[in-house]
Amino acid sequence: MSETQPDSVVRTYIDTHRTAFLDDLAEWLRIPSVSAQPEHAGDVRRSAEWLAAKLKETGFPVTEIWPTPGAPAVFAEWPSEDPSAPTVLVYGHHDVQPAALADGWHTEPFEPVVRDGRMYGRGAADDKGQVFFHTLGVRAHLAATGAAAPAVHLKLLIEGEEESGSPNFRALVEERAERLAADVVIVSDTGMWSETTPTVCTGMRGVADCEIDFHGPDQDIHSGAFGGAVPNPATAAARLVAALHDEDGRVTIPGFYDGIAELSDAERALIAELPFDEAEWLRTAKSHAAAGEAGYSTLERVWARPTAEVNGIGGGYQGPGGKTIVPASAHLKLSFRLVSGQEPYEVEAAVRDWVAARVPAGIRHSIVFGAPTRPCLTPLDHPALQSVVRAMGRAFGQRVRFTREGGSGPAADLQDVLEAPVLFLGISVPSDGWHSPNEKVELDLLLKGVETTAYLWGDLAEHWKPATA
Amino acid sequence: MSETQPDSVVRTYIDTHRTAFLDDLAEWLRIPSVSAQPEHAGDVRRSAEWLAAKLKETGFPVTEIWPTPGAPAVFAEWPSEDPSAPTVLVYGHHDVQPAALADGWHTEPFEPVVRDGRMYGRGAADDKGQVFFHTLGVRAHLAATGAAAPAVHLKLLIEGEEESGSPNFRALVEERAERLAADVVIVSDTGMWSETTPTVCTGMRGVADCEIDFHGPDQDIHSGAFGGAVPNPATAAARLVAALHDEDGRVTIPGFYDGIAELSDAERALIAELPFDEAEWLRTAKSHAAAGEAGYSTLERVWARPTAEVNGIGGGYQGPGGKTIVPASAHLKLSFRLVSGQEPYEVEAAVRDWVAARVPAGIRHSIVFGAPTRPCLTPLDHPALQSVVRAMGRAFGQRVRFTREGGSGPAADLQDVLEAPVLFLGISVPSDGWHSPNEKVELDLLLKGVETTAYLWGDLAEHWKPATA
Ligand SMILES: [Zn+2]
Ligand SMILES: [Zn+2]
Repeated sequence: MSETQPDSVVRTYIDTHRTAFLDDLAEWLRIPSVSAQPEHAGDVRRSAEWLAAKLKETGFPVTEIWPTPGAPAVFAEWPSEDPSAPTVLVYGHHDVQPAALADGWHTEPFEPVVRDGRMYGRGAADDKGQVFFHTLGVRAHLAATGAAAPAVHLKLLIEGEEESGSPNFRALVEERAERLAADVVIVSDTGMWSETTPTVCTGMRGVADCEIDFHGPDQDIHSGAFGGAVPNPATAAARLVAALHDEDGRVTIPGFYDGIAELSDAERALIAELPFDEAEWLRTAKSHAAAGEAGYSTLERVWARPTAEVNGIGGGYQGPGGKTIVPASAHLKLSFRLVSGQEPYEVEAAVRDWVAARVPAGIRHSIVFGAPTRPCLTPLDHPALQSVVRAMGRAFGQRVRFTREGGSGPAADLQDVLEAPVLFLGISVPSDGWHSPNEKVELDLLLKGVETTAYLWGDLAEHWKPATA
Repeated sequence: MSETQPDSVVRTYIDTHRTAFLDDLAEWLRIPSVSAQPEHAGDVRRSAEWLAAKLKETGFPVTEIWPTPGAPAVFAEWPSEDPSAPTVLVYGHHDVQPAALADGWHTEPFEPVVRDGRMYGRGAADDKGQVFFHTLGVRAHLAATGAAAPAVHLKLLIEGEEESGSPNFRALVEERAERLAADVVIVSDTGMWSETTPTVCTGMRGVADCEIDFHGPDQDIHSGAFGGAVPNPATAAARLVAALHDEDGRVTIPGFYDGIAELSDAERALIAELPFDEAEWLRTAKSHAAAGEAGYSTLERVWARPTAEVNGIGGGYQGPGGKTIVPASAHLKLSFRLVSGQEPYEVEAAVRDWVAARVPAGIRHSIVFGAPTRPCLTPLDHPALQSVVRAMGRAFGQRVRFTREGGSGPAADLQDVLEAPVLFLGISVPSDGWHSPNEKVELDLLLKGVETTAYLWGDLAEHWKPATA
């Protein structure tokens, strides 16, 4: 169906447009679209308008700014001339983390500079750079095919509140589900293993979190007069935490692991072949030992295994010195990372039952769950994933390996609401400094991102005929 | 050696002097000697001066104000004419808890009023009333014996910082140990079981407390990226707390119970014969269940058994909502109530060893102990205790039973430094509202306190010849 796309045409096109492309990105990076800071609300709107205009200039026949109760998202659409082509929805975000020179930046965070083959500036990698490679990518794709429209129905949804926890994102997706309908979602807001090891991320963990309050005496009471003869809510909280895991580091809550497929030998082999250096990983984790579920490597633990983690615990007197009380209350914040096969609401029910059964007489408790995020996992044999791997392999001239992410993201909302598989296509590397001072993007990798998408749309259209098409 | 003291003489003397005695007490209660509030420092000094003057007027040939780096103590001494008589040191305090009408007092806390046979006012029971009964008591004793000096060498030490944790008390006692030397210490800063059940307290628990800090990652790290693969210091803290007790509620720290004599059948019988109502006790404890070491009653647990209690726990995020982190650190405040036979510094060493052995790899910890307070226990067969019981029995016309206190107090410093047994003589009842609004003292019981001491000195001199005398 699609034309062949000789790699040399793509590369020449990218080389020719490289300077203008980087100048445009720098212009976008100058807009401090910090969604978490109300004084930048106008900048976030300006960023959306800038992007919509740039996408129109790129050739997208439909570009819209979608308001939300918070910051606006940008939607763009460029239908293929082939009605039976797959529909692809690209996800990214145009808002950025806060940044100030005083935080340790060597140059102004919103005055991008190119130095040593890198562009420094807030948002260079997370996520403006990775959104922006799609603009030159689709033009290079058209240059190679000679067609007037991409080989796939291309949609972009670039939200404006990701760095603020995407508070309005799911509602937006639900409200606009028909416009967003797609056969596959491609998330460009992740990274690769390293500069020299191109990888594609195949999954993110989900997360369910809860707060548990424990109430013992009606007020703090004297531990001399009453200690040793009444139940202590801080002890109850601590015992619950201690009981979360067995000696092998496995979560003890009945049913917690239900539905999870064990890692296959093939999956474990793919993880094991990555050049992992545990000492270096521990430095990144600012931690002093690796520890976790027995029988799994560190990467397996963070990418492919669910967890129960204490994010916060408090109860009784925490000021200077001592205070001899039995505290009136204690509080826990727990979060559970979830992997494919786990149903968040079933995990929630299991946790509630398990907690209720373990709180001792004389202690009342309450437990409140936040909205969960489902895990995403791209099947390794999914044809769209194969296209991404081939396109990336062509761009990088290297074998592409597989990673996952331990974290959780709004991609899961797209997967849920649109009922479409989620793929990840990111070219950022760990040294890019997301959320840190001196964030940068490697220009070579950025242009590899352009090149990957230039190959991707044709490959997808050629190799995949989704059932719905 | 001593004269007989016909009870009728004592009672007549008390009746005759009752009004002046109560007027004097009311005058003292008008001085707001709140040691915890710097703006009342002058009042605490005034209270000491008032008491010293009153003791001089009572007849004590020696009255001194002993300065400390904080609030002053009052010392008074009245030697017996018999050089071989026992030396008794009475302990109490002249400072009071803070109080304000707005806290729920029906009348001004420092404007004492007599109503329904009670005197209301801050310090009425804790501890001015109980210090003050010793003044009329010794006069009534002299009235009955016709002697010019008490039958025992009588010393009083009335400190001014008890409600602020007695920060300078031990140093004062060490510095003045020769002046304070005594065969027995009588602490008048406790209470009785109830209005209708006169009791004498025979012991207080000691206490050792510590803070433990746990350090994991060098900063809070993302629980998505790293959770499940590094040790969590909040989990380490919780596991330590959970491991403190076994399923029978016994403390698991090796050596913790070393040196403790089991409660004898006689001691258990004395506790069991008290009219204990667990439901009412739970209301006082503002708690919703009794729980503790298996094999012991509630009273045995709080009076006669050591404990390990969590006074505070903290770590990670404790604000509103959730935060998906592995926290950098966690903190515990533990206290251990100690009973006779336990050596605080041995308990401290046992706790240190036990904690160090349980902190997992990758978590650093530090542990700091405060200055411990030793337990006090009066042997039931001590002749001075027998005198107190007889004197109280004569005053109350009832059998006197035995209690203990679960708390810990500066009495232990007197026991330690002066190497003298500590007895407790208090007439306050639980409804007196120590540290609460509308503190009061029952006038009938207050005068029974006067009467008890009127009998006590003669009984002591008659029945006890300490080895040192
Ligand atoms: Zn991002
Ligand atoms: Zn007191």
